[in-house]
Amino acid sequence: MRIALAQINPVVGDIAGNERLISNAIADARAGGAALVCLPELAITGYPPEDLVLKQHFVDDAADALARIASQVDGIVAVVGYPEQADQLYNSAAVLADGKIASSYRKNRLPNYGVFDEHRYFKAGNRGAVLELNGALIGLSICEDIWTPGEPESVEAEAGASLILNLSASPYQAGKGSAREEMLVARAKENNAAIAFCAQVGGQDELVFDGHSLVINAAGEILARAPQFEEWLLFCELQLRQADFSAAIAPDVDFLGSFVTSPPNEDTSLDHLLARVADDDEAVYAALVLATRDYTNKNGFNGVVLGLSGGVDSALVACIARDALGADRVTTVTMPSKYSSAGTYNDAVTLASSLGVSLIELEIGTLMDGYEALLAQQFAEREPDLTEENLQARIRGNLLMALSNKFGWLVLTTGNKSEMAVGYSTLYGDSAGGFAVIKDLPKTLVYRLCELRNGRKDQPIPVSILTRAPSAELRPDQADQDSLPPYEVLDPLLELYVEQDYGVEQLLAEGFDEKTIRHVIGLVDRAEYKRRQQPPGVKVTGKAFGRDRRLPITNRYSQ
Amino acid sequence: MRIALAQINPVVGDIAGNERLISNAIADARAGGAALVCLPELAITGYPPEDLVLKQHFVDDAADALARIASQVDGIVAVVGYPEQADQLYNSAAVLADGKIASSYRKNRLPNYGVFDEHRYFKAGNRGAVLELNGALIGLSICEDIWTPGEPESVEAEAGASLILNLSASPYQAGKGSAREEMLVARAKENNAAIAFCAQVGGQDELVFDGHSLVINAAGEILARAPQFEEWLLFCELQLRQADFSAAIAPDVDFLGSFVTSPPNEDTSLDHLLARVADDDEAVYAALVLATRDYTNKNGFNGVVLGLSGGVDSALVACIARDALGADRVTTVTMPSKYSSAGTYNDAVTLASSLGVSLIELEIGTLMDGYEALLAQQFAEREPDLTEENLQARIRGNLLMALSNKFGWLVLTTGNKSEMAVGYSTLYGDSAGGFAVIKDLPKTLVYRLCELRNGRKDQPIPVSILTRAPSAELRPDQADQDSLPPYEVLDPLLELYVEQDYGVEQLLAEGFDEKTIRHVIGLVDRAEYKRRQQPPGVKVTGKAFGRDRRLPITNRYSQ
Repeated sequence: MRIALAQINPVVGDIAGNERLISNAIADARAGGAALVCLPELAITGYPPEDLVLKQHFVDDAADALARIASQVDGIVAVVGYPEQADQLYNSAAVLADGKIASSYRKNRLPNYGVFDEHRYFKAGNRGAVLELNGALIGLSICEDIWTPGEPESVEAEAGASLILNLSASPYQAGKGSAREEMLVARAKENNAAIAFCAQVGGQDELVFDGHSLVINAAGEILARAPQFEEWLLFCELQLRQADFSAAIAPDVDFLGSFVTSPPNEDTSLDHLLARVADDDEAVYAALVLATRDYTNKNGFNGVVLGLSGGVDSALVACIARDALGADRVTTVTMPSKYSSAGTYNDAVTLASSLGVSLIELEIGTLMDGYEALLAQQFAEREPDLTEENLQARIRGNLLMALSNKFGWLVLTTGNKSEMAVGYSTLYGDSAGGFAVIKDLPKTLVYRLCELRNGRKDQPIPVSILTRAPSAELRPDQADQDSLPPYEVLDPLLELYVEQDYGVEQLLAEGFDEKTIRHVIGLVDRAEYKRRQQPPGVKVTGKAFGRDRRLPITNRYSQ
Repeated sequence: MRIALAQINPVVGDIAGNERLISNAIADARAGGAALVCLPELAITGYPPEDLVLKQHFVDDAADALARIASQVDGIVAVVGYPEQADQLYNSAAVLADGKIASSYRKNRLPNYGVFDEHRYFKAGNRGAVLELNGALIGLSICEDIWTPGEPESVEAEAGASLILNLSASPYQAGKGSAREEMLVARAKENNAAIAFCAQVGGQDELVFDGHSLVINAAGEILARAPQFEEWLLFCELQLRQADFSAAIAPDVDFLGSFVTSPPNEDTSLDHLLARVADDDEAVYAALVLATRDYTNKNGFNGVVLGLSGGVDSALVACIARDALGADRVTTVTMPSKYSSAGTYNDAVTLASSLGVSLIELEIGTLMDGYEALLAQQFAEREPDLTEENLQARIRGNLLMALSNKFGWLVLTTGNKSEMAVGYSTLYGDSAGGFAVIKDLPKTLVYRLCELRNGRKDQPIPVSILTRAPSAELRPDQADQDSLPPYEVLDPLLELYVEQDYGVEQLLAEGFDEKTIRHVIGLVDRAEYKRRQQPPGVKVTGKAFGRDRRLPITNRYSQ
């Protein structure tokens, strides 16, 4: 049996646009000789639709679109994710065949951890479901259903399913590709059934979906793999057992109907695509490029603007922006002050030039003098402190926002996760903007991705950017490491504290010294209010700041 | 039997501080002759602890504190909310007696809607629980458990409970006081059991808890009511049926043990407090005062600063700040530009003077000229537009933040819900700050609260502030109503769209005209990115922007 997995890039809330994507995928799958085509979880709404599904008319509009899609389905069975309104709302997979919605499967396992809030929206189903197609039994499952052994796959396999479909919207994080393949291979073997995993691709606010649709046979061999980070219609030819109908379907499995399609007239032999799985860092870079492109385009911005400080963070963001959107949609701005060095200024100029992006130069000294003069009376008898450093950052933020307002550009911010963790950024200053591209990248990963990007032929990032000691350049001779441990110490400590919820005792056991631990976690906890006002950015680690980590601002626990 | 309800104001994460509050309440209850004292839901951690409970050492520390509290309990039974680690984590009520933790009840109904995410943290219990105290049976329940008829209260009452305790942390919203009383009266009558409702009080980030602890007899009569918005130890004398132990406890109810306390030696007759329930607007004002005081104090700020524009919004926030913190902890700033009128300037001066708060004056004209000169080359051939308006707001934001940085003051922002809804605010400008006091107040409610506050003897708000047409004063002769429908139309429309999830068809049926509907909901949907970067503020309506309403930024559905 030939099947097709439609790895589409829907836009959340764009029901009409998603309807077109789905209809086209079904038509292309049929034209390619597939008897069955699978689409991702909640394909009709895009994932995650969040509180849109609390609007009854949104759910109704999605149902209408599904009915229109179904009316065109002929000669193929299509399985499409949608929100199903029954006694309550379900996260369901509709079986479309012969011009109508034949039946549905309801997701059993609703994730409600990390970035997921599915209990907020959906009721869980509690039954498996199989359909018969050309004599073979095919089981259905949705995303989380398949991540642990057991139901619904186990009961579907017991009922005779030789293929289990999984409709998915599985957010990317570093290393997820290999974890996902191992999990699916295990599931195939446990159930002695082939698995077809069809996943959404694309960026959606803080999430990026890598696609990575797969077909695996019952022996756990990968037969076909779609490329990550792009749309794809993946075909696969499968040998499926003919179902034995002498045994009754198990009582905890719904039978969704029997369907027959005609094999294609011509012989259309098939080479299976086995796209290469990207290395971890390579995948992170690709994820950031896709997320930036999708956020910019799906939200209708004509271009982006960012400040170039001459440091690694803005260098990396500039490369990502150029790779995502092309040089002519990227504007960079250098905003030197009296504390900026000639080195960083020259590096910014060199970088913009090698990327081929335009560079605007705005000196902030006069404005800084203006603020200081205006505040002189209030600040009399007070020494310069963080206030003046923040003012410089905020002048720069204002200038970028003014360019954004005047020209309709999206401001990309350039703060990394290490800074965001310890609060080394200025609210309304360097953190002012619409999309925080690398907010979930530890500083050490920023360096690695710069090296990775410089491995390509154009080598855009001047080596001096990579070798200079990091500094905010907001006062004379400032360096990050004056007040922070080296990033090689800080980043592992932050990972354990922020992502793994280690406490002081566990951190001591890991060999960090107590003074460093107390200093760093104190900084992390006190910066919660800043993080609450950051722009959205791309999750690439196991736990990103944002919906993935929900801590109170008012909180006296710091351990 | 005399019981006591300890309406405490815990600080989230302050386990040591909360331990003291709880121990003191137990001691005071015993000294007051109570046989039983009840504390709020998750009293030991404060509510909501959010992802703190994902830290195992946090849960362990809470358990240690509970054990210390228990070791001191003697001559009284105390019921205390805490996170209970068993096979999984439960939201539980511990029964403390005779120096130890006797047993626990596990919350059955976990809210996972609106501002609540309890499925993220807890497993639901599925059994009722009763304890025997001095011959009477007492059932336990936690917050959400009691908001709908049925279990666990019904099975506890069937098992013979003549009193049902409810440990609560019930966030305030306008009108909730009366809804809560009606619900509890209904529950008492249905179950033919007295109800003792003990609730947390205080501000916690975006939530404010009004307390409003109550004792209701089995006939549905309110015997005692604690005041809203303050800490209180509420005593009540109850006549409870002696339990009939001839019937076995039902199989779905846990029996938590039998306890005996000695009645106090002296006759300590009791007058029941029946605190007055505040009117709706009065309660909203009190909620904002408490939330502002608690956010400021719990986060350790020595004072607050806010800009006074001479408009109603900043006038109301100034009153709230003064009432919350006292005049000497409030600094106001007037930042006139060439578009500011003498009227608004004078009103700001008058207001600051009648509130007795200090006023700093900073003219922003020179800085505005500085920005325009710096950007002149880039902006050549472009007309002035929103860019220049936003720059003025951002200069003001920078000045407030500079004062905040230099003097350690919390910046209060002054935007209301109507503005926040339609995006009539400047990111990093008027929305820059730490706490958005009135972000959940529709403009029409802002006016009502100003009138309410002016009903007090000091009448701080100049009448001209209340009668002048609202304007941002960012360009010549600007008025809000040039580009928005009148607030008397806008606010009801926004309530239906934002809080009730009405769609276009339903709004048309309500009599709004289509052009207005499309205009307004387009503004609301396009402003999602701005709302994502707002400071936290106080929820007072049925659905606040923030965790209460989770919509994607990237979203093409606008209906």
